[in-house]
This record gives sequence, structure tokens and C-alpha cells, in this order.
Amino acid sequence: MTSASPPHGPDSPRRITLLTDFGTADGYGAAMRGVIASRCAGAMVEDASHDIAPGDVRAAAHALSRYWFLYPAGTVHVVVVDPGVGSGRRGIAVLADGRIGVGPDNGVFEPMLNVANANVHDITNAAVLPLDRSNTFHGRDVFAPAAAFLSCGGEVDSLGPRLAEPVRLAASRPETEGDRTIGRIVHIDRFGNLITDIPGELAGPNTEIWLADRRIGAVRRTYSDVTRGEFLAVIGSTGLVEISVRDGNAAGALGVNRGAPVIVRPI
Amino acid sequence: MTSASPPHGPDSPRRITLLTDFGTADGYGAAMRGVIASRCAGAMVEDASHDIAPGDVRAAAHALSRYWFLYPAGTVHVVVVDPGVGSGRRGIAVLADGRIGVGPDNGVFEPMLNVANANVHDITNAAVLPLDRSNTFHGRDVFAPAAAFLSCGGEVDSLGPRLAEPVRLAASRPETEGDRTIGRIVHIDRFGNLITDIPGELAGPNTEIWLADRRIGAVRRTYSDVTRGEFLAVIGSTGLVEISVRDGNAAGALGVNRGAPVIVRPI
Amino acid sequence: MTSASPPHGPDSPRRITLLTDFGTADGYGAAMRGVIASRCAGAMVEDASHDIAPGDVRAAAHALSRYWFLYPAGTVHVVVVDPGVGSGRRGIAVLADGRIGVGPDNGVFEPMLNVANANVHDITNAAVLPLDRSNTFHGRDVFAPAAAFLSCGGEVDSLGPRLAEPVRLAASRPETEGDRTIGRIVHIDRFGNLITDIPGELAGPNTEIWLADRRIGAVRRTYSDVTRGEFLAVIGSTGLVEISVRDGNAAGALGVNRGAPVIVRPI
Repeated sequence: MTSASPPHGPDSPRRITLLTDFGTADGYGAAMRGVIASRCAGAMVEDASHDIAPGDVRAAAHALSRYWFLYPAGTVHVVVVDPGVGSGRRGIAVLADGRIGVGPDNGVFEPMLNVANANVHDITNAAVLPLDRSNTFHGRDVFAPAAAFLSCGGEVDSLGPRLAEPVRLAASRPETEGDRTIGRIVHIDRFGNLITDIPGELAGPNTEIWLADRRIGAVRRTYSDVTRGEFLAVIGSTGLVEISVRDGNAAGALGVNRGAPVIVRPI
Repeated sequence: MTSASPPHGPDSPRRITLLTDFGTADGYGAAMRGVIASRCAGAMVEDASHDIAPGDVRAAAHALSRYWFLYPAGTVHVVVVDPGVGSGRRGIAVLADGRIGVGPDNGVFEPMLNVANANVHDITNAAVLPLDRSNTFHGRDVFAPAAAFLSCGGEVDSLGPRLAEPVRLAASRPETEGDRTIGRIVHIDRFGNLITDIPGELAGPNTEIWLADRRIGAVRRTYSDVTRGEFLAVIGSTGLVEISVRDGNAAGALGVNRGAPVIVRPI
Repeated sequence: MTSASPPHGPDSPRRITLLTDFGTADGYGAAMRGVIASRCAGAMVEDASHDIAPGDVRAAAHALSRYWFLYPAGTVHVVVVDPGVGSGRRGIAVLADGRIGVGPDNGVFEPMLNVANANVHDITNAAVLPLDRSNTFHGRDVFAPAAAFLSCGGEVDSLGPRLAEPVRLAASRPETEGDRTIGRIVHIDRFGNLITDIPGELAGPNTEIWLADRRIGAVRRTYSDVTRGEFLAVIGSTGLVEISVRDGNAAGALGVNRGAPVIVRPI
């Protein structure tokens, strides 16, 4: 596939991860796993999550951004958050830094498409796919077969032709106004942490963080630098400014949503 | 086991899937996994789901119907939705099309029992089970040991005698009244899609779908054939008529429950 | 590691389980899995749960108590419920009965520390850990690398020096007052079962169970010994007295919380 990635085949299948908005209780994720097990018996399949909010492509892209590059080269990351299933939207395979994304062409692979030299293939090779395909469940009928094909040694090139312009998500980037940086909340996690689009480097020692007209203060090292229930800003585990409450839920306490502005300004 | 299924044993254990109503936070599913790992070290165990609503045998059977046959022959599907645990209800192993179901005899294996030539064994062989068994957690004390036994090469026959009349779920089948077909909602999935018992063939091009006195219209090809927020009927991924809202939740919007009638009538 | 545990290494890696309060939708658990896969390619990683309530160390310890010992010797149990991440709290590896716990030193390993001859190591060996470590996500940056090291054959001793006094959870133990035993609810499970700290032996045939001023009655064998909707006490699957409602949710029906007193008294 690339000279950098190890050889794969039925005896050393590529690892597969699954990220969907299916929940688990309806058996949709298990259907995908069954298809993979039948087509590539030794594939190790791992659930990243089936709990993405229904149709929330941006949340899926955020989750993917946390883990895709931490897996070894050769890993196949299947993502099925796919409100346009059955429409004209394409199914794609994305090759980036030796990892492969498989899923709908709707922006969900934004973190992989940001990599230099990422390339994208349109999944069109009918020989890889079952003859009967539903119009409502491409996770089972297109993406699981494609992932099994790759896991057991198939090449990304064989899935279909190069696609020059995959769908991209509009990037969220902070803006500068005078001595201030104005960013936005791009994700709210299970703990209610408010993750912004502001790189930690822009929130230096002589700055403080504001959320609307609420002063959060200077960036702290970690949660226990403040007392229980106090708000704080930290540089999170992906290097972005986050707003939290120690032992609490900042999103719940503040009633804010994704997209709300966050300001870094000089003290 | 059957001539059709591949040989299995400690060096090539059968794959095991788990479907329960345990949730994960209490450690019950992990207890089952621990027992399996201790009794058949190489077994690959996959979670289908632990999120079935407590005691909802019918929902578990529906989930199982989505995936059991997609796994390769030899797979062991453990299902533990078991409100009758500790009572006189039997524990069974169901052999159907080369796949094996293991769990309580309460109807949860209905989709496998529908297969011609399915046969059922009563799990009674004390040699396979631990000496001390609780009365409240047969997932750990009966079904996990039985699954491990099968995974490492045990035969279904060895678990106990044939059982002629396993418990069945009353099938939900649509009725015909004149030129109408009257079916029911049999499942509501995470997206709020209303899955009916009406085969797609009964909803041909000159028919339309009604839910009580609300006209849903003719069957569409897929969600994007209507505008956002609009109701539609589609033939779902298992061939049954489903009622949905594009980018929305039909069950929430309509306030309907499992069992509600759905009508197909000529336009 | 111990003479009792089997040899492990890159060709026969130790199994790893994960228990966290991360949920799955943010990709934090998948980030841990990615790190493990990159550092110990063959490791089998299983999710015990990612659904522990945020920061609930006691609930995590309860879940762990259900499964840690059921896995074979050599298994690595990673637990990351870690409100003190980034503070002075230590990261530890606990060796008990041949199984290894890896996570924060905050009491979450209480069930393993209760074992005679359990020993604890302070995870300090910088050679095992990545150079850059966040202050907010030690699951990814400390505990996953330590687990991968152990899985691929590393020794617990190599992680760091012995720690004589790990943090312990205050044990909940029932008290005796005259002819009564007064215990407490220590856990409420997904079914609403109220699990107490009262060993089943203390609730003999001539006793009955009371929850505050509500008489639950004598201990029954299993749920189906009462009619639907009726309260009952049983000896649960870990040998403790539990209060349940047949086919219902006792916690919801009674409005009780963890810590509420439960009394065993002579009939």
C-alpha cells in the first residue's frame, strides 16, 4: 500500500476500528462485525464508539482526531455517521500517514484529510461489495466489506479511482482582534469540558481566558490547581485550550453550546 | 458439530458474541468475559451490546435477528436477557445454520429458531458448569462456561439432551383486510425509525403507508428523497417497511410505541 | 513476574481490560487502545466499561470487584477514574493473585489491595513512558504505555519502586446492635438492585430484611419467588444481600441512594 506500512494479508490482517452513531442496542454495529468476520476471519475489530449523536459528523470528526494517528500504520478506521446514506454522496477510503479511513464522503475524515499527502479513493469496485446493497445501511453493505477487503490484504488503490476533491468540514480557527484572540468551543466532552479551537501557545502566561463576559482566568496546569467547583482553563491533551470545572461539569454549569466564543486577552 | 462448520478447538476457538441487558458499568459483562478467558484462553469475544432495555426479550431477539447469520458458521452468540433467571426456565443452546445460540429458553433466540432444521439442547451437563452457581447471574455461572466449552471445541450435543419445544415468541405478522395490509411497529431503533412487520414486497408502487390517520406516503428509496424533517417510508436494511423522519426522530415526533398499527393501502 | 503466572512477551501478550469514566463518544478510550496497539501489537484489549459515572472511584472499585479475579493470571486490568490527574497523586501497578492493576493511586484498586500479599509499585520509570505527557490524560500518556509494557512481557518490578501505603477506600462493613445487623447500600446497579455490604451468612432463615421502615421480608432464592412488582431480598451473585423488585427497579421505586441503611433482624 505504501512502502512505510507493514505487509498485510489473511495471515496478518490489519486492525479495524469502528466509529458510528448507531448505538449498540439495535444490532447494527454487530451486523458490521459479522460481515467483517465472514470476509476476513482473523481481523481484530475494535469499537471506538457507537455513541456519536445521530448524524453529528463534526462530533465524529472530533472523536477520530483523538485516536486515528495513535494506532499503528496499517490500521483501518471505519467511520459511519452517514445522514446522506443512499443519496449521491460517495463512499471513500482515505490514506493518511499509513492509516486508512473508510466511510462516507461527508467531512467525517477531516482530521486525516489535513495530513500532507493524504489521498482519497472513491469506493466503486463492485467486486469488493455484495451484489445486494440496501439504500439505508452502507455500514453493513459497503464500508464493512471494504474494511474487510483492506484488512485481509487488499490495496486502497483497488477500491476505486482517486478522488481529487473530497468533502471538507469548514475548519474552526481562532481570529485575532488587536491584542485578543477570539476562538470558539468546538466540542463538549462527557465531563462537560469545553474544548476550544485555540492552540495552547496563544494563551501564554500574561493572558487570561474569558467565556463571554465570564472571566475564567489564566491557564492552569491541571484541575487540582483550583478548588472543587471552581472554573479553570487548561491546555488539554491535544494542545488546545479547554474550560472546565474541577469535579464538575462546565457545560452544564454555564449552559453553553458548541460554537460559543472564547476570548484570550492580556491580563 | 455439523459437517458444514469448520473444526474448532483450543488452537482455533470459535468466536463468541455477547448480547445482554446488563449495561457495562456494573462489571457484569466483564465477569462473563473473565470466565470465558479463564476457560478458553484464545476465544475472541465481541460485545454485540449490553444496552438492551432491562428484561426486554423482544428487543434482544430483534437485535439478534440483525446479525446472527452474518457471522461465519461456528460463531457462538450468547444472549442474556433473562428476567426468569433462577426459576424453572431452561438454559439452551440453539444450533441453526452452523451458528450456535447460548442463553435462556425464553424466546430470545426466535430468529434462530425460525430456521429450518434448527435444533435445541437443554444445557444440563454439570461437568461443563461450575459447582457453585448463583440463582441470579447465569450469564456468569452457566452461559459463559457453556460458551467457553463450545469455543474451545466442545460439541453442542454434549451440553445436554435435545429439547423438542423451546419457548417461542408470538410472531408479529401483518393481516390483510380487503385491499389493505395492516401491520404493526415491531421495533424502534436509536434513530427513532419505526420498523414494522410488513415485508417490502407488500408495499408496492401503487400503495401508500399510513400510521393511524397520518399519511406517510409511498415508499421512497432513501432518506434524502424527502426534505429535512419530512416523514417517509423506506424498505429498511432487513427488507421490512420502516417509517422515518429525514434527519429527525420519527418515534419522538409521533409519540408512537411498539405495537402501533401501520397500514398499507392502494393509492 | 510470579512463579504462578505464565510467561508473557510480544508473542504471547497479556490480555488487557479497560475500565474508565470516559464514555466512548469523545475518543478517549480509543486513544488508549491506539497507544497500546502501537506499543504491543498483539495485545488483546477488552472494554470492561467506559460508563462509570464521572469521577466515581467507589463505583469503579465495585465494578472491578466483580471481574478482576475471574480473568486468568497475567491479565492487566487498567482502571482510569482519575479526578486527581496531574496532581501529586501517584500512578500505580498492583499485583494481586497474579493479576495486575494499572491506574491512579486513589482507592480504585481496593478489591485487589484486599488480597493477602498484594503488592504495589509506583509507576515512575521514565523509560516506559512517552517524553511528552499531558497533565489531564494519564490514561493515554501513563497507564496505556504501562499496560502495553506489561502486556509485551515487562515486569511489574520494572515500573518503579514498591509503595508501602497505597491509598485505601474506607471499607463499608455492617455493624451489630443487639440482635440486629445494620448495613448499608454500597452500590445500585443498572437494574436498580440495591447491593448491600451485608454478607449472606448474616441473613439466615430466621431473619428478615428492612430498608428504613419498609419490611422487605426474608431472603428469597431468586426473583421469580415473588410476584411481579413485589420487593424481595436475595443473596446476590457475589454473596451479599441485595434488595430488588421483580421485573422492576427497586432504586427508582424506593428513591434510595448509596449509603442508605439496611437492617437484618430476627423475625
